[in-house]
Amino acid sequence: MTANQRIVLASRPGMEAHGMPSAGNFRLEEAPMPEPGPGQVLVRNDWLSVDPYMRGRMLDLRSYAEPVALGAVMVGDTAGEVIASQHPAFQPGDTVVGPGGWQRYGLAEAGQLRQVDATRIPLSAYLGVAGMPGVTAHVGLLGLCDPQPGETVVVTAAAGAVGSAAGQLAQLRGCRVVGVAGGPAKCRHVTDELGFDACVDYRAGELDAQLKSALPGGVDCVFDNVGGDILAALIRRANHFARITLCGAMAEVNDPDPKGLPRLLPLITKRIKMQGFIVSDHAPRWSTAIDELSHHVAAGRIRYRETIADGLAAAPAALISLLQGGSLGKQLVRLG
Amino acid sequence: MTANQRIVLASRPGMEAHGMPSAGNFRLEEAPMPEPGPGQVLVRNDWLSVDPYMRGRMLDLRSYAEPVALGAVMVGDTAGEVIASQHPAFQPGDTVVGPGGWQRYGLAEAGQLRQVDATRIPLSAYLGVAGMPGVTAHVGLLGLCDPQPGETVVVTAAAGAVGSAAGQLAQLRGCRVVGVAGGPAKCRHVTDELGFDACVDYRAGELDAQLKSALPGGVDCVFDNVGGDILAALIRRANHFARITLCGAMAEVNDPDPKGLPRLLPLITKRIKMQGFIVSDHAPRWSTAIDELSHHVAAGRIRYRETIADGLAAAPAALISLLQGGSLGKQLVRLG
Repeated sequence: MTANQRIVLASRPGMEAHGMPSAGNFRLEEAPMPEPGPGQVLVRNDWLSVDPYMRGRMLDLRSYAEPVALGAVMVGDTAGEVIASQHPAFQPGDTVVGPGGWQRYGLAEAGQLRQVDATRIPLSAYLGVAGMPGVTAHVGLLGLCDPQPGETVVVTAAAGAVGSAAGQLAQLRGCRVVGVAGGPAKCRHVTDELGFDACVDYRAGELDAQLKSALPGGVDCVFDNVGGDILAALIRRANHFARITLCGAMAEVNDPDPKGLPRLLPLITKRIKMQGFIVSDHAPRWSTAIDELSHHVAAGRIRYRETIADGLAAAPAALISLLQGGSLGKQLVRLG
Repeated sequence: MTANQRIVLASRPGMEAHGMPSAGNFRLEEAPMPEPGPGQVLVRNDWLSVDPYMRGRMLDLRSYAEPVALGAVMVGDTAGEVIASQHPAFQPGDTVVGPGGWQRYGLAEAGQLRQVDATRIPLSAYLGVAGMPGVTAHVGLLGLCDPQPGETVVVTAAAGAVGSAAGQLAQLRGCRVVGVAGGPAKCRHVTDELGFDACVDYRAGELDAQLKSALPGGVDCVFDNVGGDILAALIRRANHFARITLCGAMAEVNDPDPKGLPRLLPLITKRIKMQGFIVSDHAPRWSTAIDELSHHVAAGRIRYRETIADGLAAAPAALISLLQGGSLGKQLVRLG
């Protein structure tokens, strides 16, 4: 039988690079093909999801999740096909999503896997727009920001997997939607392909002037993935009773001396609500959100892009590229 | 008939002192006794409420409320007695609270006045614990923080009119309550008279160590009046899903280069909700809150302190003292 291939965490990123991973932190290994025990399912992972949270899991930091142990398989969600099953709910040939890790074949407990319908939309989409990133957008935008028709919504990292879904969900709510993204290619994608009303390129400078022009009526709801100067500038354009959902803070991650928010008084005078969240806390909402998102995708109401790296060995470079802003839409690795 | 006495805004505080008012910004004037027109009520103001928001209204800044015009009577709430009325809902001798301003006699439209029962609790209490500061505590703590029995609540500026009410409301909810105040006298008041479980004196240094010792189980709800380093230290002690109500940011007001919040990432990893509010937005809650608070006070379940200055001419010094942290409990001016 074929051997398994996997990538383990060989060493932790050095903090002199503020925890940015490098290729040397990973090791590709051959391993015996795993065999399912009672209640277990063997999955052939065809797609690996590459996500910003992986950086944090490589570091030995106390956070909301345990770090990956040295020598252990890197964590990550996968989509694939059941090869063998010792659980009645799964049959060979079923298409599933689960925490398969950075490897070609993985064992899962039945409770960790989700059956997905790869005839409705492509299997890979269940790792992106109809998977964790899409649910993140759904919970954070609809559940926490709760924008009303006619309100203005700003989404940062708008060309990313989460941001592109959040912005399109806001449009389906009847909002005016403005994206913030880095570089003209991403901004064109956001307006021309995703249909946002405007996009601000934060790399083009004059951030305050660009935002003023893109937001003549201010902003009511911010779905933020970056923090830093961009969020501070958005608070200057925020309307009274604005809601800010904090999904990520990419600007802080690389900054040894982050500025955060220089003033809190505007949060009071503008009565702003700012809330951080983590999508895994919202388990009861997942199945409804995935069902809704996959229907929107199938009907063409929500579009998505994928940036695909080929082969397991390309996964470390794909993660590094994602963290440097090199991905458009959902970053994936095709394992098959 | 007696002439009226009033204090008008003579000049705006200079920004070189970060907008801190001085005695020269005010002018005491004699004026003719006002006479009520149709629908109006003439009130003899017996008590003037002195509040932190007044500083902001003296500056020519765009905020949630218009600044006081130069030469106009300083804004402020008063409690007093109806002298003459051209509205059927008010009779001479009625005790009322309203936006009377810094003057001995004032005219009000009937809709601006609230009848209060000065036989249940003293009239002055309707400007403090059973007035705007008490309602601020009620809305911000119960409505926004919503602490549950057994949770730990921290209140900053705990010896002030708002903070002392917020902490006692949290105790009535069955919470463990820790105050933060400046100096040993205020801290003793907070623990010994108000009955908080502990008090941290931020002027005594070692803030992080003091908070760690006072908060062995972390903090679930922060009712904050100060911002700055104290809030940042409280976020370090915050539990997952903590709620932070932003009521004031005194630390920023005097700081030309405020630090605000150095990092937003902890708001995400801890899933913190942070919300600013202004009590005047919550008009529908006022009458219930005042009724509840005045019953708690009458029954001895909520205690309060007043710092009283005598005579209208003492009002400017009373405001400056309040802004410098010199008041214990509610700062008032006795006008009679």
